[in-house]
Amino acid sequence: MTPRRQRATAIAQAAGANTLVVAHPSAVTWLTGYSPEIETGPSPFALSAIAVLARGGTPVLVVSEDEADDAAATGCEVAAYPGFGIGPVDPVVAATRALAAVLDGPSVAIDAGTFPAALALGLDWVDVGDEIAQARAVKDPDEIELIRAAIVVCDAGQRAARAHAAPGVSEFELWAAIRGSMESTAEARLPVLADLVSGPRTAEVGGPPSARVLAKGDLVLCDLVPRVGGYWGDSCATFAIGEPSAAAHTAHARARTTLADVVAAIRPGAIAGELDALARTRLEFPHHTGHGLGTGWHEEPRLIPGSTTVLEEGMVVAIEPGTYENVGVRLERVVLVTAEGCEVLSGHDLSL
Amino acid sequence: MTPRRQRATAIAQAAGANTLVVAHPSAVTWLTGYSPEIETGPSPFALSAIAVLARGGTPVLVVSEDEADDAAATGCEVAAYPGFGIGPVDPVVAATRALAAVLDGPSVAIDAGTFPAALALGLDWVDVGDEIAQARAVKDPDEIELIRAAIVVCDAGQRAARAHAAPGVSEFELWAAIRGSMESTAEARLPVLADLVSGPRTAEVGGPPSARVLAKGDLVLCDLVPRVGGYWGDSCATFAIGEPSAAAHTAHARARTTLADVVAAIRPGAIAGELDALARTRLEFPHHTGHGLGTGWHEEPRLIPGSTTVLEEGMVVAIEPGTYENVGVRLERVVLVTAEGCEVLSGHDLSL
Repeated sequence: MTPRRQRATAIAQAAGANTLVVAHPSAVTWLTGYSPEIETGPSPFALSAIAVLARGGTPVLVVSEDEADDAAATGCEVAAYPGFGIGPVDPVVAATRALAAVLDGPSVAIDAGTFPAALALGLDWVDVGDEIAQARAVKDPDEIELIRAAIVVCDAGQRAARAHAAPGVSEFELWAAIRGSMESTAEARLPVLADLVSGPRTAEVGGPPSARVLAKGDLVLCDLVPRVGGYWGDSCATFAIGEPSAAAHTAHARARTTLADVVAAIRPGAIAGELDALARTRLEFPHHTGHGLGTGWHEEPRLIPGSTTVLEEGMVVAIEPGTYENVGVRLERVVLVTAEGCEVLSGHDLSL
Repeated sequence: MTPRRQRATAIAQAAGANTLVVAHPSAVTWLTGYSPEIETGPSPFALSAIAVLARGGTPVLVVSEDEADDAAATGCEVAAYPGFGIGPVDPVVAATRALAAVLDGPSVAIDAGTFPAALALGLDWVDVGDEIAQARAVKDPDEIELIRAAIVVCDAGQRAARAHAAPGVSEFELWAAIRGSMESTAEARLPVLADLVSGPRTAEVGGPPSARVLAKGDLVLCDLVPRVGGYWGDSCATFAIGEPSAAAHTAHARARTTLADVVAAIRPGAIAGELDALARTRLEFPHHTGHGLGTGWHEEPRLIPGSTTVLEEGMVVAIEPGTYENVGVRLERVVLVTAEGCEVLSGHDLSL
């Protein structure tokens, strides 16, 4: 049993339930390795994929038949109900029956913020969504490999951003090239969270690409967060098209020093709130200094003011200080907390 | 009050509840016009956007502060709770409080297949998810305009597919060009459901783009389903790179005739199952003949065997017969059911 399944089992038991039943895609992937489709919203043919972990057992995935092959490929057991087809569908009834058939009894621990009310009906449930989210912070070795693979895709996206950014290119055109490069590298369509802003828009901290056309001297702030094989990567760089202004040089240098200082302070025992404070003595920015990532794109440890979270070996942290006075610059490194300090996983170019 | 809000109110009352409370993004958009982000899955900072419709009132959107501006732009009332920020977050508690503050009492009708268990706790709920999905089939005039706009984006994507398909181009590269064209046309990032398969892959009915490189004589089957302003478009074409085989010519001609015959039979009073049977007398294919679309990418009326659904003026139907013997060809038109017959909304090229 993987360490994370042991922790998950312990959470359910501490809550007085023998069985853990989760619906949040991040929790499902964490427990089983199966990554449900998320990009086009809830399916009319199925409820959310459900992972069921009974004490000491292998997880069971309760999914529609459309998902059964991918679900089975994880090595988990699969309880499938009819999905897409040419007959009438009633996923609420079908999923409820399939779930009931794999449950030992009504006493379950669930993630109630995403778990469907229809499936919770008749169960004696307790919410452990927060505990599961917390338990995801320390990664197992197989998870770290998946995060490395997602970072490789981020690196490809950042290379594409620099290769395609040029005067006359719109942010939309640049975005298509970046996303295309990430999907070609991963050999899969990918859900992607992203900021892509240029010129004066960089001072707005982030935002989606727009019709704005790049010009000489512009900064481009590019933050790429793809999900690859169920695990999210993260990366941010800010670079200039042609010769940047003196203000851009200064802002970039300050962000780079701040990032280096926080990375240097990462080690087991470091306090998340103190790492955040370290960054804020050097720069002012309205967002977190950093955050964990894994099956979720923003998870513990959160580097935010006042956080008492203690860093542990095996945590993966994205560190992304920025500055947004007239021009915006944000630089990011994802690191793995090691026994002695940290290993930088990100490989993308941070130069201006 | 729009006809759809009247229908929604009637559904809640018929279920014995004065208030309708929905969480499915398609239902939220349908009631309010607000289209929640879906592409990157559930947010760690918020629960699903919730729409609350009390008898005779304007809908209230219960959302995080990150969504409040877009939610308010719909003209609905907004009850916002803290979202993304640099403090601790507990969206379950925050959303539960915000929802409780706008509810008149515990008796509510919900869409229980997606409604979070945490928010349903303590409510006396009845599931009307199916009824709401059914009620979405007939579109209001403002919805038809939004679907027209989504179809314009489909048309742009189909034009890009033909413009960029060439020997030596990979399906991933073609996909990036298509999606980029749709997003530039819509001036927004878009969730997109799609099939993009070429050559022998066309016989597999559908699938995501792959690393396969296009060759002369290949067919390309391109099915594009973007969400634009909360409403989904749909479109499919199959075309050849260079000179297609005789088999491809035959398959294409049969699909085109079948499509034309079904379109010609669309009118108020037509029975969905009979339209499906009409297509299947001409072609064999493993999927539906067609389906409704709107705030969902597949909704009533479903043109499937045995369906007794009667077409009504104001329904929007995607018709997409295909044939997949050795080579796959599928052709699609989205039509609006009018008083006399139908209006074809799709404008993309259907030629081989």
